[in-house]
Amino acid sequence: MNKKWKIGIVGYGNLGKGVHKALRQNADLELAAIFTRRDPASMESACGDAVFATIADAELYRDRIDVMILCGGSASDLPEQTPMLAAAFSTVDSFDTHARIPEFYERVDAAARAGGNLSLISTGWDPGLFSLNRLLAESILPEGSTDTFWGTGVSQGHSDAIRRIPGVKAGVQYTVPIEAAVERVRSGERPELATREKHLRQCFVVAETGADRASIREAIVTMPNYFADYDTTVEFITDEELQRDHSGMPHGGFVIRSGSTGEGTGQLMEFGLKLGSNPEFTASVLVAYARAVCRLREQGQTGARTVFDIPFGLLSPKSPEQLRRELL
Amino acid sequence: MNKKWKIGIVGYGNLGKGVHKALRQNADLELAAIFTRRDPASMESACGDAVFATIADAELYRDRIDVMILCGGSASDLPEQTPMLAAAFSTVDSFDTHARIPEFYERVDAAARAGGNLSLISTGWDPGLFSLNRLLAESILPEGSTDTFWGTGVSQGHSDAIRRIPGVKAGVQYTVPIEAAVERVRSGERPELATREKHLRQCFVVAETGADRASIREAIVTMPNYFADYDTTVEFITDEELQRDHSGMPHGGFVIRSGSTGEGTGQLMEFGLKLGSNPEFTASVLVAYARAVCRLREQGQTGARTVFDIPFGLLSPKSPEQLRRELL
Repeated sequence: MNKKWKIGIVGYGNLGKGVHKALRQNADLELAAIFTRRDPASMESACGDAVFATIADAELYRDRIDVMILCGGSASDLPEQTPMLAAAFSTVDSFDTHARIPEFYERVDAAARAGGNLSLISTGWDPGLFSLNRLLAESILPEGSTDTFWGTGVSQGHSDAIRRIPGVKAGVQYTVPIEAAVERVRSGERPELATREKHLRQCFVVAETGADRASIREAIVTMPNYFADYDTTVEFITDEELQRDHSGMPHGGFVIRSGSTGEGTGQLMEFGLKLGSNPEFTASVLVAYARAVCRLREQGQTGARTVFDIPFGLLSPKSPEQLRRELL
Repeated sequence: MNKKWKIGIVGYGNLGKGVHKALRQNADLELAAIFTRRDPASMESACGDAVFATIADAELYRDRIDVMILCGGSASDLPEQTPMLAAAFSTVDSFDTHARIPEFYERVDAAARAGGNLSLISTGWDPGLFSLNRLLAESILPEGSTDTFWGTGVSQGHSDAIRRIPGVKAGVQYTVPIEAAVERVRSGERPELATREKHLRQCFVVAETGADRASIREAIVTMPNYFADYDTTVEFITDEELQRDHSGMPHGGFVIRSGSTGEGTGQLMEFGLKLGSNPEFTASVLVAYARAVCRLREQGQTGARTVFDIPFGLLSPKSPEQLRRELL
């Protein structure tokens, strides 16, 4: 290992902390600094020593950072931060608002080109590894259908929706793939599945003292967009149970393609994840793609990229010769 | 769809026929000609019209073919054909003798560079898609272990070994992953598994009239390298049963990585295939990679490549914009 790539982290919530921990598993990468909107003096490192700075000072680190890993949210942080930072740094982010990716790509591409930097957008596991598998599967099996199942895992958006209901003190929502549907897809049947048939939603709710549980339940299961189209279970639990049983952030899912070759020969491709921690796994994906961005930028590439543009060989610290010898 | 890439097929066994059929599922690719060592006049098309020619005449087609898909075997065909044809054509092959890949790569690289062509070697599903998943998984989860299971599927080498035993008229061997081992790996336990614990070998044998079945069974289960290290079952069947129940070419398997992030958080990645026809699926992989080779050659790239060097976006007929919009 000759050279260490220098990595900056922007944002230090669960994802940023996950990136910090993941960097320690990769000997060819080193943390340069962590940038935050909070007071740097108030920050505590999740693991080992770390230099904290304010995002406003990021430009001062321009010559000391090869790639910035942006760990903010897709709703308001990344739409602003990625184009801004791409003017000065190569970047990696996990922008995951699927419908807005084309527009986001164009804005980041323009900023990165103007700044002479390289920006990989929308990586992680979905978008990211699941997207790669959807693309691979339909490219190899053009005749067929692809299904994506998510879970069992916490949906932040749905959990937030529960917490906004009057009388709800706290709550968490799990998206659960329906095993019977997964099995039908795996069997090669290629069923047309309604929303309700693919996933169910499990809610664990802490009610405020004296709140009407029946009306909370009704408010959840009939909520349009979030729950009305699903079979939803609501279980009332205590604060202690919420802390004890529901503070992890597991997630996962499957991408399954059932296709045909020749005269109707059935072929099945499946990619699955079972994640003990969604943010830590997402962080590990971002870190591997940061390595690829460092290498491609060194080759002189600029502009925006997605996972579809990056050869897997660049994700590994191993040389191409070693990869061919050990992993092909 | 503006332009159609022109594809040649070299070798017309099961794999070559699979490529022929797969081309018909891809509207942007068209078959130019099929090259064989046999008499072109004696050849029958597996599907639709086809021009047959002898391999010796391949050079005459130099300006009419964008990429040659080489469908010969790894033991003797490809080590000779790929370097020879790479001097005149861009190529895709499925060279699968893992131990000899580095040497094969060097020879093909030199030939392709000298000829100004691009050669993708060793694609298919293993080496190929399984290799990609091994690489992806260890790059994202550097702390962990990866297991590959194969089957249930026919092993040609082991079937041939059975057929060489005196008294055996015909036979087929299935490699079967041991479900208990797969489940231990999936559970995140990361067991150290002996060869015997990962796969078992099922043999279906047609004995010659009057042959001693006990000694055939003994010869199989004690055969070094092929069977001695495995639990092996031997079942004697009739010619009719062999034809009826064992003439398909199913295969498949799993690549599973169990890794840790942060302070020992378990993370699991799995890629699996369940293939109705091994040669037809392998052919479909070769065809998707042929599209990528056409595009990269058009960009001016030459030399040898492996799947580790090819971004997935190039495998699809869709434009980068369409891929970002529909599949990311």
